[in-house]
Amino acid sequence: MKEKVILAYSGGLDTSVILKWLINKGYEVVCYIADVGQNDDFDKAKSKALSLGASKVYIEDLKEEFVKNHIFQALKANALYEGKYLLGTALARPLIAKQHIEIAKKEGTNIIAHGATGKGNDQIRFEMTFIKLMPEVKIISPWKDGGFLSQFEGRTDLINYAEENQIPIDSTLKKPYSMDDNLMHMSYEAGLLEDTKYEPQQDMFQKTVSPKDAPDKETKIMIEFKRGVPVKVENISEDKAVTGALKLFKYLNELASSNGIGRIDMVENRFVGIKSRGVYETPAGTILLKAHLDIEGITLDREVCHLKDMLMPKIAELIYNGFWYSPEFDFLMAAIDKSQENIDGKVYLTLYKGNVIVTGRESEKSLYDLSIASMDKSGGYDQRDAIGFIKLNALRLKLGA
Amino acid sequence: MKEKVILAYSGGLDTSVILKWLINKGYEVVCYIADVGQNDDFDKAKSKALSLGASKVYIEDLKEEFVKNHIFQALKANALYEGKYLLGTALARPLIAKQHIEIAKKEGTNIIAHGATGKGNDQIRFEMTFIKLMPEVKIISPWKDGGFLSQFEGRTDLINYAEENQIPIDSTLKKPYSMDDNLMHMSYEAGLLEDTKYEPQQDMFQKTVSPKDAPDKETKIMIEFKRGVPVKVENISEDKAVTGALKLFKYLNELASSNGIGRIDMVENRFVGIKSRGVYETPAGTILLKAHLDIEGITLDREVCHLKDMLMPKIAELIYNGFWYSPEFDFLMAAIDKSQENIDGKVYLTLYKGNVIVTGRESEKSLYDLSIASMDKSGGYDQRDAIGFIKLNALRLKLGA
Amino acid sequence: MKEKVILAYSGGLDTSVILKWLINKGYEVVCYIADVGQNDDFDKAKSKALSLGASKVYIEDLKEEFVKNHIFQALKANALYEGKYLLGTALARPLIAKQHIEIAKKEGTNIIAHGATGKGNDQIRFEMTFIKLMPEVKIISPWKDGGFLSQFEGRTDLINYAEENQIPIDSTLKKPYSMDDNLMHMSYEAGLLEDTKYEPQQDMFQKTVSPKDAPDKETKIMIEFKRGVPVKVENISEDKAVTGALKLFKYLNELASSNGIGRIDMVENRFVGIKSRGVYETPAGTILLKAHLDIEGITLDREVCHLKDMLMPKIAELIYNGFWYSPEFDFLMAAIDKSQENIDGKVYLTLYKGNVIVTGRESEKSLYDLSIASMDKSGGYDQRDAIGFIKLNALRLKLGA
Amino acid sequence: MKEKVILAYSGGLDTSVILKWLINKGYEVVCYIADVGQNDDFDKAKSKALSLGASKVYIEDLKEEFVKNHIFQALKANALYEGKYLLGTALARPLIAKQHIEIAKKEGTNIIAHGATGKGNDQIRFEMTFIKLMPEVKIISPWKDGGFLSQFEGRTDLINYAEENQIPIDSTLKKPYSMDDNLMHMSYEAGLLEDTKYEPQQDMFQKTVSPKDAPDKETKIMIEFKRGVPVKVENISEDKAVTGALKLFKYLNELASSNGIGRIDMVENRFVGIKSRGVYETPAGTILLKAHLDIEGITLDREVCHLKDMLMPKIAELIYNGFWYSPEFDFLMAAIDKSQENIDGKVYLTLYKGNVIVTGRESEKSLYDLSIASMDKSGGYDQRDAIGFIKLNALRLKLGA
Repeated sequence: MKEKVILAYSGGLDTSVILKWLINKGYEVVCYIADVGQNDDFDKAKSKALSLGASKVYIEDLKEEFVKNHIFQALKANALYEGKYLLGTALARPLIAKQHIEIAKKEGTNIIAHGATGKGNDQIRFEMTFIKLMPEVKIISPWKDGGFLSQFEGRTDLINYAEENQIPIDSTLKKPYSMDDNLMHMSYEAGLLEDTKYEPQQDMFQKTVSPKDAPDKETKIMIEFKRGVPVKVENISEDKAVTGALKLFKYLNELASSNGIGRIDMVENRFVGIKSRGVYETPAGTILLKAHLDIEGITLDREVCHLKDMLMPKIAELIYNGFWYSPEFDFLMAAIDKSQENIDGKVYLTLYKGNVIVTGRESEKSLYDLSIASMDKSGGYDQRDAIGFIKLNALRLKLGA
Repeated sequence: MKEKVILAYSGGLDTSVILKWLINKGYEVVCYIADVGQNDDFDKAKSKALSLGASKVYIEDLKEEFVKNHIFQALKANALYEGKYLLGTALARPLIAKQHIEIAKKEGTNIIAHGATGKGNDQIRFEMTFIKLMPEVKIISPWKDGGFLSQFEGRTDLINYAEENQIPIDSTLKKPYSMDDNLMHMSYEAGLLEDTKYEPQQDMFQKTVSPKDAPDKETKIMIEFKRGVPVKVENISEDKAVTGALKLFKYLNELASSNGIGRIDMVENRFVGIKSRGVYETPAGTILLKAHLDIEGITLDREVCHLKDMLMPKIAELIYNGFWYSPEFDFLMAAIDKSQENIDGKVYLTLYKGNVIVTGRESEKSLYDLSIASMDKSGGYDQRDAIGFIKLNALRLKLGA
Repeated sequence: MKEKVILAYSGGLDTSVILKWLINKGYEVVCYIADVGQNDDFDKAKSKALSLGASKVYIEDLKEEFVKNHIFQALKANALYEGKYLLGTALARPLIAKQHIEIAKKEGTNIIAHGATGKGNDQIRFEMTFIKLMPEVKIISPWKDGGFLSQFEGRTDLINYAEENQIPIDSTLKKPYSMDDNLMHMSYEAGLLEDTKYEPQQDMFQKTVSPKDAPDKETKIMIEFKRGVPVKVENISEDKAVTGALKLFKYLNELASSNGIGRIDMVENRFVGIKSRGVYETPAGTILLKAHLDIEGITLDREVCHLKDMLMPKIAELIYNGFWYSPEFDFLMAAIDKSQENIDGKVYLTLYKGNVIVTGRESEKSLYDLSIASMDKSGGYDQRDAIGFIKLNALRLKLGA
Repeated sequence: MKEKVILAYSGGLDTSVILKWLINKGYEVVCYIADVGQNDDFDKAKSKALSLGASKVYIEDLKEEFVKNHIFQALKANALYEGKYLLGTALARPLIAKQHIEIAKKEGTNIIAHGATGKGNDQIRFEMTFIKLMPEVKIISPWKDGGFLSQFEGRTDLINYAEENQIPIDSTLKKPYSMDDNLMHMSYEAGLLEDTKYEPQQDMFQKTVSPKDAPDKETKIMIEFKRGVPVKVENISEDKAVTGALKLFKYLNELASSNGIGRIDMVENRFVGIKSRGVYETPAGTILLKAHLDIEGITLDREVCHLKDMLMPKIAELIYNGFWYSPEFDFLMAAIDKSQENIDGKVYLTLYKGNVIVTGRESEKSLYDLSIASMDKSGGYDQRDAIGFIKLNALRLKLGA
């Protein structure tokens, strides 16, 4: 009996070649397509896989889980990698990999294949999750396989192999960038972008209009949070409200996208030790991070806020490096979850040509005390208390001077 | 002989009343005006102080030192308080206080007076610096003085006292906000802003145009860094270059200001334990932070970057809380200074209606290796190395599963 | 009707004077004695309080709660202040204060009095807890009260007042040290110890024998942990086992005490900015910390361990400074609690003349894998995996070289 | 011409086999023996290497550099891995590797060989240093070489190969443990110790007597520090003083060794993801850590101390993992070096049967202020200042309650 392998399949050239290569090596191949909101024709991909010899194709809708259990978890932590990257790809990978393992279990196999390269982060994010959730897993990673690598040295070899094996090819033209698309973001890397000074052309961007092309009219919205996650988005300008994690996230994507919000261009550090240039569009995520930071401003204790800020880079690093399913991530997220218990309230924002402008906020769990904050009222605050406060805070400086 | 006190003087109602109050208490009062770039009429303030009875008035130009030794130091650390505030006031205070002490020493006294309130951060920033740099200092802080507080319960008392003591008053109307102006920023708090939901009106903003009113035309610039600090700004659109710390900072302020860049609205946590709403305009600082983060992306080692990111909130907290002159700040900044040794290079940016868009960067100290980053070349990178890398990184997860 | 105040009472000179002073000021005074395991005659103290005019005396047994909810919580975090101090006093204070507030609520008052000095840490630990748990509390702290301070400038004033007010005095001799005794430790400070070079005499120590006087015979014990806390102590030498939090803690105290374990001499940093010399005896705590670190060695994930180690000093600082009941402590402890889920197992130790020697450990939740750790077996570990692991870990160093 | 390889050689069975194996593969082999204070017969090892065919043998005395630039640097940071391990082996490895590279440069080759296993930490510490200091290095690591591994599957194969190749063997008996010896420590792992519950027998220990066998008499010593490192050790009991980094370190080793000081037994986490049991004797290091912590107690600012405590685990991790020569280690050590500027003074200690008892300390750079610490004097400290200090520290807790 043939060994069965579950292959993460996209319908593109690479994974189609891998599918055929696995079949040619004698495997029964079950294809798995994760729907994390990318703009793909899943039915077409399924047909293609079956036509190439896949014994079965799973199309798994992970969008709701992606938003609720991944994007919103990262949001609680304000996770931002190296000060810029909202982790759109990194957040999806462990979820895709977890479902990959689920299918392997259902199909009664422990052999998993994926088409991520050996230079990137995704291979790690996939494989760490595979190993954690199925310690006995056997991973076939062709781009780290000596035989595969010597057979396919460049794109031409892939195309030739495709032609020899009746694999339909959409285009023999190499794309000018490598892209990753999901509900949260679109990423661009490689190709022309490998010149770090090269300025991306406007036609590259798929998920947002340019700030220059955005309407010359403000969109005023309100985002409501409960326990640190958004539960409602109101378009005040249009008197429209959206609730439900997936729905409101998609709606925020629309609003951000049309207002030119969420582009980032950076050189980042990969876990394998390489610096790499990445350009990202993260429309909804960009708004949510600003809104979440703002609602925390009024509801989160100062010292918790500062501790969170110190731990955030570590959390972002763990997500980026593929340690979503790890004891250290659970350890840190236990604290983060604790911190969000009172993060309720409404943030008012203006979207305008690339700008996300916070204009106000209110909360029933507010720690802001108008009477005590006021410069006109004492609010029970005795300014003379500051004398002792300063003197004792300065005492060690004085003794050390 | 009268005791001599050095009073930080602004020319406004409060410090004019304090000046007279001190004279009436029998002190000889020397006034000190720090020029940190605020838009004030220093000569007018000087005349006013002398006319009110000050025995001498110092006007100290601290602008160059402010930019080089304070703003650029914070920039090295990417210091940002609570994810938003660029610390414009907090950075100026220790410098103002240091010079205050210098004058006290020159004038042979150890008595210092300032007009900061007992609810705010500035009193702490001033007094911590005073005590650290002159442990034997005697601080007169009227807004924490029982006698003063009972004499002046509200603005009316100040105005009445001014009238009784022939203190000229510009306007008896209370300003709708409290403002602090310097080279780096303008801050707004109190008054109408105490309602955290209140949206500031456009006419409040003094240092930047609204993104809506900014030109519908991109400004393309280049900022060059050496050892982590900017040394040149080029306006590529206009083929103009500016060097010199103060000059380039002012020029960046112009560019940012006219392009609607640098506004922030937040609820922040004061050191005295109060949450307070602050609105800030930090034009040049906003561009520089983005540019500095970007040049670090290509020149800073990954692990140093991540450690810096974890320490940054602590550094920002120390600056915010007034611990600029402290052993713990020196301790952390020794590491930060070390990290900036190779932070050289050029960042290309587009300014447009509130947006600061990084479009590319280059550096002779780049750690980005095109051949190894490339998806088309191996660059000496053997993808099979990732097998062992992942297996050993996952080993403890596997054993723990 | 008289206002009612709840006074933390010890029976000693200071709090007896305070009791009388409060009565003389017109208060009804309810005394509260917290039994946290100190070696005091509570009945005698109660009689004394009543004879001095207290309207009621509460003696509250907090020992079990002290061990379970305070000492063992700190143990989970391996809390150690400034590398040395096991926080014996700091851990008891918030519990004592919490019960103080409970009594105030029961007695229908919000007035609280305590006799801690204004230079120490305990006033802060008490008052932070009071304010957190009863925001409307009114605190009477005589040693920070101007009237009290001018009335009682030194010990002689206290003794004179006592004589005038028929307060019985055990001894008019000042003790050579200030001590704090509870189930966890005995502390010594002030007096002769204020000379930081002074070597404490053996007769000072109350809770442990000197290592020199300990038996010249090893005591072999086993401590079993479940979820990070000790659940059983076995004296292997004597074939005796003790379970139950309070019982086993007391038994460990006995064993440690007789074997000369747990003395520490240090100069520490108080929250008020003063350096202070402290000498401590923490018998059971010293053994438990070593044992807990050891059982974590075999059951705790590496990365969680290292993160815990980085957060530990902050946790110890919060405990020391009196922030037991604070959102930041809850935040960090949520992570710590998470980390202890699998900290089960047995640690074998030898006690001998001041030494706590770990000799072995075992756990059903062990992450130690004999076959993979072994130098003689591969255990499924392919040494060649280390090639890629090292190459990719070194890649950024290579590119930076 | 033959390619030249520099082999780290010990004279033992493993590296002798590797030497011959390299020669048999056609290399010219230059042997390198690092003298880091291990108790070896270097002349005998040299003769053996030459007799086996080495073309040259370097014996490099690294002891002074080991103490001054490695042990004392770690001491400044109080580096302790996982709360227990003083890093004796980890500190020596980068130094040994650096000199290895120096010899390669001198010999005009870039080929380096070492005999560390693929499961351990040392391979990483060696190879990270090789790659950092000589990016073009070619590393021959037989225990990660497929050919070697299949040729030598166990100890018997090594012995057989030795016999076939006229390699003298001291003993065909496998040692019951694997040991690493240097000036700082002796480590024991593997063999019988792989059973984590196994209690090491007394005859295993080479560097210290058992506390039970130590003299029943106290040894009183004084250690003087300048800028954080020891500069003098006085044996007060014998009125003897030793200065000079290497000399005083050796003398402390003697004192500690004879007093049964410095044994540790633990399960630790290796960088390759394996938990491993290690037993260590670190005599002088154990005393120095206690003494250094104590002198910091009286001379180091509180906030610097707490920040150092938080960064220490990271520093220890970097040392343990082999990142001594890395930008992140330099980054952190810049701060640590800054912190030690005023760490001067004398610590008084008693050594007794395994105990290191601090009894007092004094310093000209002391931050301890007797008058202000005193409970009998005010020292300029106004206890009423604590009212405002506590009220403002508690304000956010009050508002949050």
